Amino acid sequence: MKIKIQSYHTSDFPSELTTENYSVILWKGSGVFSVDDINYSYRGYNILFLSPYQKIKLASESDETIHVLFFHGDYYCIEYHKEEIACNGLLFNNIYLNPGVELSEENYNYILELFHHIKKEESEKHPFSESIIKTYIQLILAIGSKQKSSFENSVIAREKIPNKKAFEFQKLLESHFKNEKELSFYSSKLNITNNTLGKTVK
Amino acid sequence: MKIKIQSYHTSDFPSELTTENYSVILWKGSGVFSVDDINYSYRGYNILFLSPYQKIKLASESDETIHVLFFHGDYYCIEYHKEEIACNGLLFNNIYLNPGVELSEENYNYILELFHHIKKEESEKHPFSESIIKTYIQLILAIGSKQKSSFENSVIAREKIPNKKAFEFQKLLESHFKNEKELSFYSSKLNITNNTLGKTVK
Repeated sequence: MKIKIQSYHTSDFPSELTTENYSVILWKGSGVFSVDDINYSYRGYNILFLSPYQKIKLASESDETIHVLFFHGDYYCIEYHKEEIACNGLLFNNIYLNPGVELSEENYNYILELFHHIKKEESEKHPFSESIIKTYIQLILAIGSKQKSSFENSVIAREKIPNKKAFEFQKLLESHFKNEKELSFYSSKLNITNNTLGKTVK
Repeated sequence: MKIKIQSYHTSDFPSELTTENYSVILWKGSGVFSVDDINYSYRGYNILFLSPYQKIKLASESDETIHVLFFHGDYYCIEYHKEEIACNGLLFNNIYLNPGVELSEENYNYILELFHHIKKEESEKHPFSESIIKTYIQLILAIGSKQKSSFENSVIAREKIPNKKAFEFQKLLESHFKNEKELSFYSSKLNITNNTLGKTVK
């Protein structure tokens, strides 16, 4: 499979979905989903960007249609296209960020429209259809990146002070996790108690 | 100027328009336009792709709004992006093709909508706005290429037999125009009379 658009009802959604493709999942409603066993709650209009082999489970509280765009990394390579849209590490392959982004109703409807365009274009199989479909994918990633970067910036701005230690902890962890497994190593580096560190990174 | 969208009424359209930018001109109605002093008639929904410094004049029979997207070659380079959309030689820089393409009403409205999206995105000046605008440009070029290649293919298929000599004449002209200015040189190469050659390339 190079590219595919599939729709599910929340009741038909696989109990566990994992694929070799990149997935862009568009849904609305409310409930809880998990990606690689980390739970997130959602409400309203949402879009989710999953890297290959990430595992998603969904417990929806509402009955809605879920639209999923799958594309293979050989079809649209996010690294090759990083000049056009630098979404690697923002939308994909960032374990520190929620893989979901809340959308405005307008953006939700617009991206749903782009899904329909992709489906229509794919059925035409014109020599230029592939260029057009790749451009639609790029547009979805660009809009997603814009929305996510705005959201993350506002979260960071809001939480700047209380999370400063958590950020430092994250950096320390990245440098030392291989050799240092004890919490006290990190708390002493940060000049706080184990207890405070526990609360900070909650 | 890197990118700009401008609207004109047919009555306000400059008597002669030429710019250092690439231009994508969207209009409907009927009349005659010329590009570099070659006249073309048009009717219905149209899009026109002009390379930098091409000169356009318009004599419209109807009173309509003309929408023009200008973008600089440094902002969106059609050669750099030829992997994504090979429009050089098809939409741009091909002196043998009509620079205009007829559009369906649906595609006309869709591209007009993309113009509005570009305008809105440009006013937001978000860090991701440039990526999104470039993707919109790419989408317009891809849709234009699809439409034009379908149209040119059908024209070539229709005119294949009567235009074979004209095609050979074109090739000969490209090879010999520097040294051979006489029509008889070409007609003898093609084994036809000057008169027949004149009719063939009309």
